[in-house]
Amino acid sequence: MGWAIALHGGAGVPNSLPPERRLPREEGLRHCLQIGVKALKSNMTPLDVVELVVRELEDIPHFNAGRGSVLTSKGTVEMEASIMDGNTMKCGAVSGLSTVVNAVSLARLVMDRTPHIYLAFDGAEEFARQQAVETSDSSYFITPENIERLNQAKDANRVQLDYTPPIQNNTTKNETEKPFANGDSQTGTVGCVAVDSNGNLASATSTGGLVNKMVGRIGDTSIIGAGTYANEFCAVSATGIGEAIIRATVARDVAAMMEFKGLSLKEAADCVVHERTPKGTGGLVAVSAAGEVAMPFNTIGMFRACATEDGYSEVAIWPNTKVE
Amino acid sequence: MGWAIALHGGAGVPNSLPPERRLPREEGLRHCLQIGVKALKSNMTPLDVVELVVRELEDIPHFNAGRGSVLTSKGTVEMEASIMDGNTMKCGAVSGLSTVVNAVSLARLVMDRTPHIYLAFDGAEEFARQQAVETSDSSYFITPENIERLNQAKDANRVQLDYTPPIQNNTTKNETEKPFANGDSQTGTVGCVAVDSNGNLASATSTGGLVNKMVGRIGDTSIIGAGTYANEFCAVSATGIGEAIIRATVARDVAAMMEFKGLSLKEAADCVVHERTPKGTGGLVAVSAAGEVAMPFNTIGMFRACATEDGYSEVAIWPNTKVE
Repeated sequence: MGWAIALHGGAGVPNSLPPERRLPREEGLRHCLQIGVKALKSNMTPLDVVELVVRELEDIPHFNAGRGSVLTSKGTVEMEASIMDGNTMKCGAVSGLSTVVNAVSLARLVMDRTPHIYLAFDGAEEFARQQAVETSDSSYFITPENIERLNQAKDANRVQLDYTPPIQNNTTKNETEKPFANGDSQTGTVGCVAVDSNGNLASATSTGGLVNKMVGRIGDTSIIGAGTYANEFCAVSATGIGEAIIRATVARDVAAMMEFKGLSLKEAADCVVHERTPKGTGGLVAVSAAGEVAMPFNTIGMFRACATEDGYSEVAIWPNTKVE
Repeated sequence: MGWAIALHGGAGVPNSLPPERRLPREEGLRHCLQIGVKALKSNMTPLDVVELVVRELEDIPHFNAGRGSVLTSKGTVEMEASIMDGNTMKCGAVSGLSTVVNAVSLARLVMDRTPHIYLAFDGAEEFARQQAVETSDSSYFITPENIERLNQAKDANRVQLDYTPPIQNNTTKNETEKPFANGDSQTGTVGCVAVDSNGNLASATSTGGLVNKMVGRIGDTSIIGAGTYANEFCAVSATGIGEAIIRATVARDVAAMMEFKGLSLKEAADCVVHERTPKGTGGLVAVSAAGEVAMPFNTIGMFRACATEDGYSEVAIWPNTKVE
């Protein structure tokens, strides 16, 4: 038993990344991990910790959430997020945000201050105004990198996955499913799970979605049971192809396999990611009430980091490649 | 083994209903059941059957879906629906519809004709225009009964549950949780599950949500795993307080308890509704691959109907009160 924290910055990294693409993201993960560890050590509740860490991740333009969110087919941002407290099973979710700087905190406010769990689009933006959360115009969210990525996706006539590298200009439609390893501008959904030494669990996830997604598209990130889940057994935050994660009810299934089949966190997380979700579609970070950590993925890489009370700490991208 | 079908018109009926409130809904259930049975007998796929039956339920103004949808705090309709094919695990969902006559069919089109599962609000309405589905202005959806129900809810300053009776004018805030048995205008989410004699399963659910809900509020009906789920074990459609159903991942959990714990459909459905979801919050209809039916609810009543290949048929509202 002890506290533990794990976070991710998206699955689906290619085989290699040039330093200018890799280092800022590693540094971002390390920075956010430190913030989370410090908060847990100072007895902040896991619910507050995951919100705090995801806010930090949203503020880093190298990840696909908050600032740095990828663009819809119309060049707009539509961000979504959710948060869940394993203790109370209370949860909050938002979709279709275009001006809210920290979507995860609006999800928290929906949870804390409305009779509902989930607000979306105009109603969610109106609630944001009522709550006076920080907002910004689109210039804050939209990075040149994401404009380029959208244009390339449009050229290739594809809906590009959140973590898919921008495709080369000479790509034909037949080649669009082929992954590229040019190392350009990887992005990904962000998320954090945490447990304190009393076994209180929480999870939060935030994203800009898929490059060139249809306007109005909702993915797994804001769906309780798909992208985010926490109860008395574990807390889970998933990343990858939202449609595959929704279909596989990924986050809920990790907890369900622990409770209904008696599996360990690692067994349940591995089973869900490697046996019940199509290869190449995503991964997750999870912590159990006992302070165990699991971070499986079925993509080439996943930006991830974790730390536990016994002193273990890790920042990694590919399998078996701890960089800290 | 054999085909089976079950449908619901919402949970949370009070202790008694006057004939003018009860009979049109019983007749609606009977009518839709007959349509579903006929379709299954003519070898229509379960996926097509549940869409067909839910369309019929949406067209009946006595239920809270499609025509007859309850109103948001601003007096508007925001309908949602989802559909899932247990064979392929393909699914579609929509939220925030204000003009689409049959939300369930738009969910089906999202599933069949987009790379996504879930479209909401303006993007979903735009997709509806592109697909040229039938739309109507608000006069089609908004019934005098629902305007009255909204005004009463506003007077009492409450978010009224979809199946809660309109409250009396002299109700004080302290009394707003007390159920009323005046029998006035009960409404409820609609849904249908079906299985053919080969064990192919499908589920669909549709709703107008909660009376006086915040604009932008999404409930369980459009959430795969909460209000709707189907796989190779069973198909489930839930109804009730959306927030409780989301938290309990009701529809997924019935299937998960069958798969991971080896429970029968009835055991799993009873456990989820009676032991894992707060009393008074809802119910579900479910069918298994073997053609079993379960229709548990933890509210006073639930509009429901079912039929199986061996000749059993039922239309009921309260416990043990088969009316056909």
